[in-house]
Amino acid sequence: MNMKRILDLWKDQQSTLNGWISLNNAFGAEVMAYAGFDTLTIDMQHGVSDYSSLIPMLQAIKPIPTFVRVPWLEESSIMKSLDAGVNGIICPMINSKKDAQRLVKSCYYPPYGERSFGPIRAKFLYKQNYFEVAKEETFVFAMIETKEAFENLEEILSVEGIDGVYIGPADLSCSLGVTPKFDQEDEVVFQAIKLILQKTKKYQKFCGIHNGSAAYAKKMEKLGFNFLTLGSDAIFMLEGAKKIIQDFHCN
Amino acid sequence: MNMKRILDLWKDQQSTLNGWISLNNAFGAEVMAYAGFDTLTIDMQHGVSDYSSLIPMLQAIKPIPTFVRVPWLEESSIMKSLDAGVNGIICPMINSKKDAQRLVKSCYYPPYGERSFGPIRAKFLYKQNYFEVAKEETFVFAMIETKEAFENLEEILSVEGIDGVYIGPADLSCSLGVTPKFDQEDEVVFQAIKLILQKTKKYQKFCGIHNGSAAYAKKMEKLGFNFLTLGSDAIFMLEGAKKIIQDFHCN
Amino acid sequence: MNMKRILDLWKDQQSTLNGWISLNNAFGAEVMAYAGFDTLTIDMQHGVSDYSSLIPMLQAIKPIPTFVRVPWLEESSIMKSLDAGVNGIICPMINSKKDAQRLVKSCYYPPYGERSFGPIRAKFLYKQNYFEVAKEETFVFAMIETKEAFENLEEILSVEGIDGVYIGPADLSCSLGVTPKFDQEDEVVFQAIKLILQKTKKYQKFCGIHNGSAAYAKKMEKLGFNFLTLGSDAIFMLEGAKKIIQDFHCN
Amino acid sequence: MNMKRILDLWKDQQSTLNGWISLNNAFGAEVMAYAGFDTLTIDMQHGVSDYSSLIPMLQAIKPIPTFVRVPWLEESSIMKSLDAGVNGIICPMINSKKDAQRLVKSCYYPPYGERSFGPIRAKFLYKQNYFEVAKEETFVFAMIETKEAFENLEEILSVEGIDGVYIGPADLSCSLGVTPKFDQEDEVVFQAIKLILQKTKKYQKFCGIHNGSAAYAKKMEKLGFNFLTLGSDAIFMLEGAKKIIQDFHCN
Amino acid sequence: MNMKRILDLWKDQQSTLNGWISLNNAFGAEVMAYAGFDTLTIDMQHGVSDYSSLIPMLQAIKPIPTFVRVPWLEESSIMKSLDAGVNGIICPMINSKKDAQRLVKSCYYPPYGERSFGPIRAKFLYKQNYFEVAKEETFVFAMIETKEAFENLEEILSVEGIDGVYIGPADLSCSLGVTPKFDQEDEVVFQAIKLILQKTKKYQKFCGIHNGSAAYAKKMEKLGFNFLTLGSDAIFMLEGAKKIIQDFHCN
Amino acid sequence: MNMKRILDLWKDQQSTLNGWISLNNAFGAEVMAYAGFDTLTIDMQHGVSDYSSLIPMLQAIKPIPTFVRVPWLEESSIMKSLDAGVNGIICPMINSKKDAQRLVKSCYYPPYGERSFGPIRAKFLYKQNYFEVAKEETFVFAMIETKEAFENLEEILSVEGIDGVYIGPADLSCSLGVTPKFDQEDEVVFQAIKLILQKTKKYQKFCGIHNGSAAYAKKMEKLGFNFLTLGSDAIFMLEGAKKIIQDFHCN
Repeated sequence: MNMKRILDLWKDQQSTLNGWISLNNAFGAEVMAYAGFDTLTIDMQHGVSDYSSLIPMLQAIKPIPTFVRVPWLEESSIMKSLDAGVNGIICPMINSKKDAQRLVKSCYYPPYGERSFGPIRAKFLYKQNYFEVAKEETFVFAMIETKEAFENLEEILSVEGIDGVYIGPADLSCSLGVTPKFDQEDEVVFQAIKLILQKTKKYQKFCGIHNGSAAYAKKMEKLGFNFLTLGSDAIFMLEGAKKIIQDFHCN
Repeated sequence: MNMKRILDLWKDQQSTLNGWISLNNAFGAEVMAYAGFDTLTIDMQHGVSDYSSLIPMLQAIKPIPTFVRVPWLEESSIMKSLDAGVNGIICPMINSKKDAQRLVKSCYYPPYGERSFGPIRAKFLYKQNYFEVAKEETFVFAMIETKEAFENLEEILSVEGIDGVYIGPADLSCSLGVTPKFDQEDEVVFQAIKLILQKTKKYQKFCGIHNGSAAYAKKMEKLGFNFLTLGSDAIFMLEGAKKIIQDFHCN
Repeated sequence: MNMKRILDLWKDQQSTLNGWISLNNAFGAEVMAYAGFDTLTIDMQHGVSDYSSLIPMLQAIKPIPTFVRVPWLEESSIMKSLDAGVNGIICPMINSKKDAQRLVKSCYYPPYGERSFGPIRAKFLYKQNYFEVAKEETFVFAMIETKEAFENLEEILSVEGIDGVYIGPADLSCSLGVTPKFDQEDEVVFQAIKLILQKTKKYQKFCGIHNGSAAYAKKMEKLGFNFLTLGSDAIFMLEGAKKIIQDFHCN
Repeated sequence: MNMKRILDLWKDQQSTLNGWISLNNAFGAEVMAYAGFDTLTIDMQHGVSDYSSLIPMLQAIKPIPTFVRVPWLEESSIMKSLDAGVNGIICPMINSKKDAQRLVKSCYYPPYGERSFGPIRAKFLYKQNYFEVAKEETFVFAMIETKEAFENLEEILSVEGIDGVYIGPADLSCSLGVTPKFDQEDEVVFQAIKLILQKTKKYQKFCGIHNGSAAYAKKMEKLGFNFLTLGSDAIFMLEGAKKIIQDFHCN
Repeated sequence: MNMKRILDLWKDQQSTLNGWISLNNAFGAEVMAYAGFDTLTIDMQHGVSDYSSLIPMLQAIKPIPTFVRVPWLEESSIMKSLDAGVNGIICPMINSKKDAQRLVKSCYYPPYGERSFGPIRAKFLYKQNYFEVAKEETFVFAMIETKEAFENLEEILSVEGIDGVYIGPADLSCSLGVTPKFDQEDEVVFQAIKLILQKTKKYQKFCGIHNGSAAYAKKMEKLGFNFLTLGSDAIFMLEGAKKIIQDFHCN
Repeated sequence: MNMKRILDLWKDQQSTLNGWISLNNAFGAEVMAYAGFDTLTIDMQHGVSDYSSLIPMLQAIKPIPTFVRVPWLEESSIMKSLDAGVNGIICPMINSKKDAQRLVKSCYYPPYGERSFGPIRAKFLYKQNYFEVAKEETFVFAMIETKEAFENLEEILSVEGIDGVYIGPADLSCSLGVTPKFDQEDEVVFQAIKLILQKTKKYQKFCGIHNGSAAYAKKMEKLGFNFLTLGSDAIFMLEGAKKIIQDFHCN
């Protein structure tokens, strides 16, 4: 499934499944690529990766469409990730219109933004002239994960070039005074999640969320989320190991 | 649990659980170290590791007792793994008395063998003079995994310094003309496994085996195996990812 | 000695010895861990490390309490270092109240700050719920090393969440117009050092300094410094090599 | 040829040839060092390198004078590159006097700037006291590559400590509404290039430009450019491979 | 073009072009993959790669069919390369029937050989059961590059499982007393090359050779060689750099 | 000082000082290169290095003459180290004439040996045709460190191409039944050391030894040793750290 097909599904109100890569290991990433996710995301924020492991991981994953969660709203991280050929950026802590505009400026070439030209790996991955197609081939997710972002949501959504929002349930919980966790059932956070989704739809943009379980992801799909992250490589490894030990002792 | 405790359990006819590390990633190894295994083994034969990733992985795992499966009966691999401070060596393809003697020679200092002295990391891990204690602190598993080894088993077991045997069920299957798999139920292979165990016990040595499931490991424990490997990091990751996707679709 | 014990000693007006790691090498870091320091600091500013070497070095050093000197007052460096499980941050060039507030915001979760939640390695290192204990388990040193910082010192010290100050004698010298060096005896710089210590004590916070020799460190201890860095791994290596060559020629 | 000799040539209105390194590979960098360039530049912006590969590459290249193009106007990247011992910095996107001043502040020690002192590798490369000579041993290129920079050029050039400008023809093209390419012949861009050169000369500073071909570089030399970049390692590899395949098929 | 297609061309007496990778760099390898070669070979003998760089390079290159030249006739190198998923092995210094038999034993599972089972990455790359297809999916080239090998050629060719021979013209020259070079025109060596080709064809096996130029490769194609290596990544880079410098000076 | 100068000194019955590198770190190696040793040796046997760290370390050290202690008498390790451009090989455990002959065969091109031609980095380091000069530019030390080697010493020394012997005092001690240490004063070992030196001189070859202190090295120089290793990088680091801590507590 290529990125165009993903977008078509989303436009058709369908959802896709995203795998989350926290380890900085190219072979581990390739293992994740064989699991059956529609897209994969390399987490450079809370995952163990930095730029030195990014390109080998992207090479391992190809040709699955790939996102990077950059560590922060930093021009250099966004630029180097896009040059490396990712299909999209998930940027943490977009809390205001100004943040959203800086993100957009970093992601697109003139005249839409101020990204510097030098697509060292990206230029190999696109058949046509990369400069011409870069705008439409780059998907930009703003993370909505603070009270401030929640309050500024419509202003953020109105920034052209922001293609969707991605909810970080743990940070959103913290910011709303609730203990952070995935698959949040706390009413305050849950209402916020639903409201974010509703406003995002109003602006005809796409909405993603991190899920800890298949059941919660299913629930989110029914609400209308398009981009559903399921667990992470490190969690699968740890939980798998714990479970087989436990199964042994219960056998 | 330290290595001495592991050996005491084995001498007491009890079993311990071993985690298997195929990925060459220090953080992944540390995740495995938090799962609850009694020992961990870094697989330098069929796993993705080589010496360049070994020391960071051992550092990540400490203080859990650790084995290395070396890639082959090669002096340099054995020597460098022991210098790195592992508690024991699992050596593939020990098919004859001569192989077993070469393995022993590589693992122990004079007068027991011909290991070269220079325990660059090992010397930090042992309180007493490492040279004095190295013989008793080094555990040597010969892998019995071919028809030839099976036929020469008693000769191999009679070599002093071989502390145990580790069964590779996949290779043993191949060698006996059966399609390779873990948790082998094929009668020819299964009989061979039981016979290997029985002879190993006769020589008062310890016996380990690789298992794909908790249920099969339990069965092996009941037969009398001491050292039970359960799955591997890469398998936990892949199976966990596949399962959550499947659960999503079945939800 | 764990971090709690370190803090108890400091509260009791005692000092501890800190080793400084400039090389980006996990085995070198482990060698430093066997030398006998109370804490170790990985220098990501002027040392050769970046994030790609950080986690292997932390794994090598464990369980010794560890600080990171981040390269700059950057949210991403601070966040990733804390997620990696360090006990504290030493942040260079905190020159104003605004800098100190930004540092505090980056180091603590809401409601104390705006650190993003995702403690990939830190969550394994703390027995209790990491979110609950993160505030008290994170130690924040502001580096006072410019004339501007010196002038704004009380404002910086009054920021809640700044737990101590760390003096960079070389940069402080530069900024005061003196040729940079450790173990500074220049009167202008020395008076500044004493004044910084005195004001830090007034705010009941802790004070650290980098020392080139045991003698100078002893002098600093007598003045009342709590956190005494002694030399660095690269310096020990270079000076040891030079000395043995010189000893040979003088023999 | 050392850096002093390079500068003497430039002062004498002569040009030198610069090799451009996009790959993050120490042996590849050493191969480039044997090709015959006067200087080499490691591209940390659009190249594949980050800090983790920088020092090995600098070691491979020595003693050829070396520049780093930093990824962005970021204090940490500039500081760590200079500490690593490079002869100069090429900083992208210097668009205003304020940008130029921040760049200068990052590159020089007090009293000329606010660079933090700790030249971990640089101190080995200079015979004299590094602190004393750092100002004159550090060459600072501001990249002029946007319409905004073009408009603010004289203000940028008037900032003391900016030693030269480096033209990024691709970004300059984008910013002027022209499809990005090297060896630009578009009249709007070409006029801009000439005007930048002319104003730089007026301020008695040096001017460099990236070229895709020897012919264009020759043209730029005739215009008066001093610092001529020719192609890049990745391009040589790709074009060489394509050419030999084509030659085979045409043979 | 997949490996099956390559073999079909060879059976049809046609030739394919092979790129040679000497650098240990995943991005460099991917650049080579975009150049248009039919197959690529990672040189672990005289190239800069070892196992630690192999898997990232294979991931970068996929899905182009890939060979590894192992450093020596060593079980561990052959086994780990095959487990990594390469399509074939080029093994240096096969000088006798005994060498050829040891090579074959290392490359195939029982009952054809004694390769140990554990295809960590290979199992993902083949749709069918890897164990069943491994024999036919593994291509084995013996390098004929000494006088001794030349004398034992028919015995080597008669070993079942040797699928082809690959001529190392430099070593063959040395061994025949001629200064080593590619594109050898020396009569003694050239006659040897033709005789090797002729005997290989007699045994209905395939023949490859390393070429320094398109013209020589064309000549080899006309003689009947199937597998034509053209230059190498490092040579393209060095020659490209030298040529642009020379072109500049001649312009 | 280049290798030619080293050899001239040895021929003139003088000694040189060799630094020993156990860490796998390019910057650490460069620090050692600034200390003032005449030569440096990278220890791939008991040190932490393997091939993946070798080339960056050689690049860091250049232009100081460099030896590699290979992990074992293995063709691939010797070949790859020489291709990387080292000035000589120190090979452990040369116990017989047969071992010495295999070592010589691995180190030299035909007609002197059977080294395979492909000097990927070495070819850049020598001005003349590398093939022509390789024999005289390659220095081969056989390690004499077992009772067996001691008994076969004259046979080993009589092998043409063995340029010197290097004594491993720790292994020699083990083999002679004495607890291993450097700076051995035990009479049995000391007599053996003197006899090895005497016989080596008789064959007009050079003799080296590892020393833990300047005093012992001086003693060895007086006996007539040419190549004196002093300590190691890791020891300097550890001892320097321990000493400054101790000095602090004694101050």
